Amino acid sequence: MGLKAETREKLRSVSTATVSTALYKRGFRIQMIQGVQPLSPDQPTMVGEAFTLRYMPAREDLNKLDVFRDHGHPQRKAIEECPPGMVLVMDSRKDARAASAGAILVTRLMKRGAAGVVTDGGFRDSAEIARLGFPAYHQRPSAPTNLTLHQAIDINVPIGCGDAPVFPGDVVLGDSDGALVIPAHLADEIADEAVEMTAYEDFVTERVQGGRGIFGLYPPTDPQSLQDFATWRKKSGR
Amino acid sequence: MGLKAETREKLRSVSTATVSTALYKRGFRIQMIQGVQPLSPDQPTMVGEAFTLRYMPAREDLNKLDVFRDHGHPQRKAIEECPPGMVLVMDSRKDARAASAGAILVTRLMKRGAAGVVTDGGFRDSAEIARLGFPAYHQRPSAPTNLTLHQAIDINVPIGCGDAPVFPGDVVLGDSDGALVIPAHLADEIADEAVEMTAYEDFVTERVQGGRGIFGLYPPTDPQSLQDFATWRKKSGR
Amino acid sequence: MGLKAETREKLRSVSTATVSTALYKRGFRIQMIQGVQPLSPDQPTMVGEAFTLRYMPAREDLNKLDVFRDHGHPQRKAIEECPPGMVLVMDSRKDARAASAGAILVTRLMKRGAAGVVTDGGFRDSAEIARLGFPAYHQRPSAPTNLTLHQAIDINVPIGCGDAPVFPGDVVLGDSDGALVIPAHLADEIADEAVEMTAYEDFVTERVQGGRGIFGLYPPTDPQSLQDFATWRKKSGR
Amino acid sequence: MGLKAETREKLRSVSTATVSTALYKRGFRIQMIQGVQPLSPDQPTMVGEAFTLRYMPAREDLNKLDVFRDHGHPQRKAIEECPPGMVLVMDSRKDARAASAGAILVTRLMKRGAAGVVTDGGFRDSAEIARLGFPAYHQRPSAPTNLTLHQAIDINVPIGCGDAPVFPGDVVLGDSDGALVIPAHLADEIADEAVEMTAYEDFVTERVQGGRGIFGLYPPTDPQSLQDFATWRKKSGR
Amino acid sequence: MGLKAETREKLRSVSTATVSTALYKRGFRIQMIQGVQPLSPDQPTMVGEAFTLRYMPAREDLNKLDVFRDHGHPQRKAIEECPPGMVLVMDSRKDARAASAGAILVTRLMKRGAAGVVTDGGFRDSAEIARLGFPAYHQRPSAPTNLTLHQAIDINVPIGCGDAPVFPGDVVLGDSDGALVIPAHLADEIADEAVEMTAYEDFVTERVQGGRGIFGLYPPTDPQSLQDFATWRKKSGR
Amino acid sequence: MGLKAETREKLRSVSTATVSTALYKRGFRIQMIQGVQPLSPDQPTMVGEAFTLRYMPAREDLNKLDVFRDHGHPQRKAIEECPPGMVLVMDSRKDARAASAGAILVTRLMKRGAAGVVTDGGFRDSAEIARLGFPAYHQRPSAPTNLTLHQAIDINVPIGCGDAPVFPGDVVLGDSDGALVIPAHLADEIADEAVEMTAYEDFVTERVQGGRGIFGLYPPTDPQSLQDFATWRKKSGR
Repeated sequence: MGLKAETREKLRSVSTATVSTALYKRGFRIQMIQGVQPLSPDQPTMVGEAFTLRYMPAREDLNKLDVFRDHGHPQRKAIEECPPGMVLVMDSRKDARAASAGAILVTRLMKRGAAGVVTDGGFRDSAEIARLGFPAYHQRPSAPTNLTLHQAIDINVPIGCGDAPVFPGDVVLGDSDGALVIPAHLADEIADEAVEMTAYEDFVTERVQGGRGIFGLYPPTDPQSLQDFATWRKKSGR
Repeated sequence: MGLKAETREKLRSVSTATVSTALYKRGFRIQMIQGVQPLSPDQPTMVGEAFTLRYMPAREDLNKLDVFRDHGHPQRKAIEECPPGMVLVMDSRKDARAASAGAILVTRLMKRGAAGVVTDGGFRDSAEIARLGFPAYHQRPSAPTNLTLHQAIDINVPIGCGDAPVFPGDVVLGDSDGALVIPAHLADEIADEAVEMTAYEDFVTERVQGGRGIFGLYPPTDPQSLQDFATWRKKSGR
Repeated sequence: MGLKAETREKLRSVSTATVSTALYKRGFRIQMIQGVQPLSPDQPTMVGEAFTLRYMPAREDLNKLDVFRDHGHPQRKAIEECPPGMVLVMDSRKDARAASAGAILVTRLMKRGAAGVVTDGGFRDSAEIARLGFPAYHQRPSAPTNLTLHQAIDINVPIGCGDAPVFPGDVVLGDSDGALVIPAHLADEIADEAVEMTAYEDFVTERVQGGRGIFGLYPPTDPQSLQDFATWRKKSGR
Repeated sequence: MGLKAETREKLRSVSTATVSTALYKRGFRIQMIQGVQPLSPDQPTMVGEAFTLRYMPAREDLNKLDVFRDHGHPQRKAIEECPPGMVLVMDSRKDARAASAGAILVTRLMKRGAAGVVTDGGFRDSAEIARLGFPAYHQRPSAPTNLTLHQAIDINVPIGCGDAPVFPGDVVLGDSDGALVIPAHLADEIADEAVEMTAYEDFVTERVQGGRGIFGLYPPTDPQSLQDFATWRKKSGR
Repeated sequence: MGLKAETREKLRSVSTATVSTALYKRGFRIQMIQGVQPLSPDQPTMVGEAFTLRYMPAREDLNKLDVFRDHGHPQRKAIEECPPGMVLVMDSRKDARAASAGAILVTRLMKRGAAGVVTDGGFRDSAEIARLGFPAYHQRPSAPTNLTLHQAIDINVPIGCGDAPVFPGDVVLGDSDGALVIPAHLADEIADEAVEMTAYEDFVTERVQGGRGIFGLYPPTDPQSLQDFATWRKKSGR
Repeated sequence: MGLKAETREKLRSVSTATVSTALYKRGFRIQMIQGVQPLSPDQPTMVGEAFTLRYMPAREDLNKLDVFRDHGHPQRKAIEECPPGMVLVMDSRKDARAASAGAILVTRLMKRGAAGVVTDGGFRDSAEIARLGFPAYHQRPSAPTNLTLHQAIDINVPIGCGDAPVFPGDVVLGDSDGALVIPAHLADEIADEAVEMTAYEDFVTERVQGGRGIFGLYPPTDPQSLQDFATWRKKSGR
């Protein structure tokens, strides 16, 4: 069980755009985490199963600075418990007026082997996080401590993130277009199909760069296109 | 334990405006459920403890119409389990593009003795609900079935509703200005204080209607104001 | 061709909520015109085929007051050409900062026999329109002339209205929850199904008002529910 | 100087829609106070010169409850100083998450002879204000005390309200479509023109109710329309 | 007819800021395409006439993946028909939750000689597009296929894009501040004036960098400023 | 009086994230200027006292291009009067549809020795400003002249900027996460505390980079953490 190593590898080689289309073919329209962007243009592609953290609005009497002294505080617990290879996905109710986390926690997460971190709110110390080379996605930088707005309340329950449904164990893929969620039971077949689609898209891109028009080629309504593709695959070893 | 009958009675006689101020004095700034309104201008004041329902974004494959055949479906379960005297509060992520519930479920809730219902989304069959004489609050009417957008996922967990924190057992008060949440442990003292404040505000209103200015009266910086108030209380029996 | 009289009658007897569910069963999720409300709580149910008007942002040099002297001006033309029994649906790009139309034009539309009017912007003279007893839907009142913001550009082309797709000839249904769009080719079967659903919902409402719980009844997973319904239909003649 | 009695009377007889068009003819596009509505559908038309109050975000240490003990507090001062016949217009930065004022202050304002009150935020005790029969405009009801969000900082300075520019002394007109601002130096000529326009619009409405089409009539490109209007004016004494 | 080569050259040397001011002098206030940004900070200035594509909300039954097999599909047609030297401007109703197009189509557009592409939605494969060195403007990256949200419906009709009016043939100018639309009949005179204004602004910038204050210089109310400018032009050959 | 040189130096060495937490400890929750970002990732940290400019909506007749010929125009005056070492903070009502200022004015401000500039709207010539190496913060680039939307009305009054309260003389700190406002009377103690906090955070970061977990370390509930920190300070000279 869990995300297979080869599925992870396949997904690392495809784009969120391609996977979105594969999901759409199966009737999924809202798996994109809307409104989030990578902290750095140079961060690697992110692939991993979702480990979730749910925030609720922070009631003033329950969110004094000393709450972090409690080892059971869900935000800190999530950082220390997110399994290696997984992506910590935070439901911050799309509110970036206070931070979902900062550089120290994200660094710790990286050191523990997590595959990435996503919030539909914002991170503080954003420039420092951007330099880590660790896949991180948010709406925008946000300096205020989460206590002013967000109370961590639940770990690893189903959540919404950027209007997408996220169940623990779903597979999260992130690239420069953003991040999306693949239902766990579809990860393998989506990965397979996306690898195939990517090969064809790369072939198309090469042709279009060479001056070819899109009719008959994209999609391949002209049978010649598929023959050319077959030849191309052989030649390029894909 | 639970909401005392006399506290309930006291809260029924005060306004969300007055209670908001009493909460503000204790450092609470975000207890108002933002952006909701009563479905009918004539519905009675709502008082009751919060029983909560959490929605997440509805994944297409998990939200076919037949999900309602399952008696364990959290939305239907919440309707049949919300204890009499309590208010069902729904976290619909402030998204009113699909309904949080409709007239049949709200009628059932009323029949079961609930004290009211609140969503930060919208209700369908809104005119029918408005005619029930049952306290109901939402953002705006919304006809589409919840399945298009909202998947009920959790019952009686802490939630956000209209950006307010809601813990099960908190006391929800609703009037024509909207609805707010009183932390459970403060309900009694807030109720007492709000009754006192209301008496003074009624006295002030009477004086202002009679032509008196607000300086010295509201707040009572002129000692005479408090003497006049004492006389007024005696006379009016409050 | 066109909307059959009996389909029109059937739709007049059902709600947007019920029809939304029938559409959802067929895979339609975005047919509700989001964010519009009736101008009057007392206006009759609206049913009619869509006749559309498309607005674009108003360039200053092309929208002087004298443009209305041109009989070919699309806004005025739409008012004089919308066929009786049809609903004029306006794409105002969800922008209510200026009016989509006012009482004189809406009165004319009514006099010409139209079935209603919808804009995802706002109407001016809103109180006067509300008194007409004519089905009208908008986002909110808006006094400024459309020329400040909206240039009428196209008549009877496919448009978006409140994020719903509207093709000329689609059937528009409006009640107190708002307005929605039924694809033309589905109007008959949706009307039939909605009438059946409404009968069952009315039966359920009666039972729930009488104290019955929803499990087994709504949906009718208990076979007894369907038997009771059959009896009820006979008795109530539905 | 100031608003002439006859100009006030004329404006009382015309609509914000008509005045918006008169302003548009003179190049004014943003005088409508966007997003505000009357608290009661039955409140009288509002006409008066603007007396302004500016709010800024409320810093916590400067907005304890005892600030109202200070007679110089700008909110309370504005209430006691707004001259009779004027409209108190509040710049609440379009933020209705806390109240701009409540029933006691609005009652006092009414008693002092003010012509109305407008905020681009919200009022608390909204149902009570609605019953006063006093022209009041806001975005939506809002129970929390202004101290949680709004600090009154300036009286009678130029402000923005609902994205409209408001200079002290400008004339504010409100009806069921909302409220707008007439630059002070144009009040007389706008009033004159709007009265004329209203006569013509009433004539047109009567004709359209009688079955007449709009081409040639609205606007009167057919000379017969103006002759008919002349006859109508004589007959109806307008 | 069409955009003159020398006007194109002139516009390439001026900024959207300068042209905005020239438009404002002629009464144009809304020609800026609001809310769009270049995909790459390094892409060249964009100048070309508008060729438009209009999207409407995508009805589910009309937007299966196989629609792209139709050579007449307006999105694909627009890509293959946009004339060289023109800018493809897409009305995506300011909704970036799904892509307006992706790298393959944008590459094809570039290869066909188009001058640039603008959407008020988002592009997928955004990093790949950014590397093309082709002027492209959008709101934000967006991976989901357009079919989930946008149905291409019309080619080369007047549209709104980012709240700006765009008529086919209008001239679109884009730089790092964004993109704007010059009404076709004004392109030549705006280009001339903007070149002159740019010369003066460059002169001013040099002076201000040298320590000069702005009074008398910007605008040149001090006659000496214009004399100095004359000298500077001679010296710098502008 | 005024900002002490050593406080300025201390603040230059700390982050907005750290200062936000120090403010939160004292009850300040809204001092972050929400929704603004640096124009360049490379611009230096910004520290200086606030000098303010207030914009209101621009009435058309008062905002012709020739208003800038008036040396008393508040925008131009603010640029020429903002004292060296101070930050010009503009209240643009969070509206970035027109520019708050452009490169010439910002260059002049820099030349006059200002410490930075902030608007909650947008700047035109944004790429040019970004190259100045001068701390500048806005919402997004915006080419249209301020006259289309913003009328400068007041200099150095208390304002709101990005929903934060800004009083003249408050200390503004900006880094890559954005900009915030320190109440003037707290600048010294906040600076001291933030320097201490930063030392501890740097120590924590080093440990976490070395593999240490956060429990007991952040916050230092394990006494050993404080001992290790003491050692680290000695060694690192902090």
